[in-house]
Amino acid sequence: MGGKPALFALDWGTSNLRAYLLGDGGAILDHANWPLGIMQVKDGDFAGALGQVLSAWPAAEGLPLIASGMIGSRQGWREVPYAACPAGLSDVARGMARLDWRGRRLSLVPGVSCLDRHGIPDVMRGEETQIFGAAADRNDRGLFVLPGTHSKWALVEKGRIIGFATFMTGETFAALKDHTILGRTMQGGGIDAAAFRRGVEAARAAGGALLHGLFGVRSLGLFGKLAQSEGAGYLSGLLIGSELLEAPRLLGLGEPPAAAVLIGEPALTKHYRMAAEMLGRSVEGASADAAAMGLWRLAGAAGLAKEAA
Amino acid sequence: MGGKPALFALDWGTSNLRAYLLGDGGAILDHANWPLGIMQVKDGDFAGALGQVLSAWPAAEGLPLIASGMIGSRQGWREVPYAACPAGLSDVARGMARLDWRGRRLSLVPGVSCLDRHGIPDVMRGEETQIFGAAADRNDRGLFVLPGTHSKWALVEKGRIIGFATFMTGETFAALKDHTILGRTMQGGGIDAAAFRRGVEAARAAGGALLHGLFGVRSLGLFGKLAQSEGAGYLSGLLIGSELLEAPRLLGLGEPPAAAVLIGEPALTKHYRMAAEMLGRSVEGASADAAAMGLWRLAGAAGLAKEAA
Repeated sequence: MGGKPALFALDWGTSNLRAYLLGDGGAILDHANWPLGIMQVKDGDFAGALGQVLSAWPAAEGLPLIASGMIGSRQGWREVPYAACPAGLSDVARGMARLDWRGRRLSLVPGVSCLDRHGIPDVMRGEETQIFGAAADRNDRGLFVLPGTHSKWALVEKGRIIGFATFMTGETFAALKDHTILGRTMQGGGIDAAAFRRGVEAARAAGGALLHGLFGVRSLGLFGKLAQSEGAGYLSGLLIGSELLEAPRLLGLGEPPAAAVLIGEPALTKHYRMAAEMLGRSVEGASADAAAMGLWRLAGAAGLAKEAA
Repeated sequence: MGGKPALFALDWGTSNLRAYLLGDGGAILDHANWPLGIMQVKDGDFAGALGQVLSAWPAAEGLPLIASGMIGSRQGWREVPYAACPAGLSDVARGMARLDWRGRRLSLVPGVSCLDRHGIPDVMRGEETQIFGAAADRNDRGLFVLPGTHSKWALVEKGRIIGFATFMTGETFAALKDHTILGRTMQGGGIDAAAFRRGVEAARAAGGALLHGLFGVRSLGLFGKLAQSEGAGYLSGLLIGSELLEAPRLLGLGEPPAAAVLIGEPALTKHYRMAAEMLGRSVEGASADAAAMGLWRLAGAAGLAKEAA
């Protein structure tokens, strides 16, 4: 693992920008978070934002530049069309957009799209890069889960994302908590662990009848069986439990499905881990910096990192 | 069916009050809606609100008074404890609260509660009265469905509500439409019929994976396969379709389940009817004034209507 900088890589999302100075083999030489997600950049001045970031990193001078995430969306710097599943490193690298930035070249990684067997499309943008990173030390295969506002479940075989499904778990939680009667009796936003477990059990009991299971937050409260401080945890357990129960079936996996690889910050993945254990789903963790390794691999597939080598 | 007034009956809900002057056999002699739902009554002056309603009805002078709905909730005039399932007319009548109102007696109908086989409670308040009304000319048995903010599915046998389940379909629709990314690309709140049907199909395709199915509103839009004017219809079809697919299973009914009796205004039930037809569920309609007949029957079971006869 070399100490010589070879690539400047950006995981550039909606609300956050994470920058990496990478050395040989994708080693992280330095990294930092910037509050410069695409929604935070004023007037769409992404060129200026990139200049601000790079001015703090003299060592990045002259390095190839690569960015993944929502920066390549319609609301970002330039919309980069999705690469269609099955999509491996070379497919995604081929779909990169090249921008000229102050005489240097910036490569924007495309998202990935797929069609389910009913012809309904699904999309990811940024997660494909994390998945390629996490797959690097897993023989380029496995079931990868990225919890979040819109959770992604992706199947990788022979280095290619062959299918995936999005679950609107995080955003649905927020909408129900803040804008329905369920939230009106909640106190505090914290996730009580015992209540979370009860929610997971309720998801199992409700089966696919999530719209029914939700009402338990209210009815249990009416009978004094769920404290106001427990409502958020129960609701979270119900939604995450439902996701964990349905996702493997949706992807056509057997029972019990293979171990899922959780990608994300511990604060985000810990409840998935807890629910998975309860439901007999086997999980393992991936590095929270999977994006850095994914960007390194994509840069290699595009011949970018070689330029710097 | 007599022309002589025998009972003054109120279906007193959260946002609306519907008053009926009933004659022999529960015949509706006169009725009116008042914008005096419990949330509209200032300072909880329900006695004043009732006075306002009755002052418009000299013919109701001296009649027994009965009210069902949220007026009997914690936020209403007085909280009336739920009658537990299985609950027939006499069980519910026995649970009525008696209020003194300007020297007259007002009977408040209790709601009904049940426990599912996992011990999670469910509740209704007002719907039990509509169900008793609709069951009157159906041999006091059947599967009854009351669409709404919180839809209710209830099984009645030998005149008793033996079990039921709530689905938060309407409220979830509103929260997702108004407070997630799904609504941000919607134009107009109207329900496009063709898009609604596509949503119902998507519910069937998604099975229990509703949190995944929801994302179709966004991904179809990204690929130009769902117009902004179609988003609300698709989302509605997805949620109502999910409810229709899951509810019979949840209540332990066979396949295909018996015909469901839809109770409610046509504007509310027409989409349930459309989705049920697509899914091979047989439905029939009940009178939108089922509450009046239910109140009449409950008054009879409590010996109130006899007083007036």
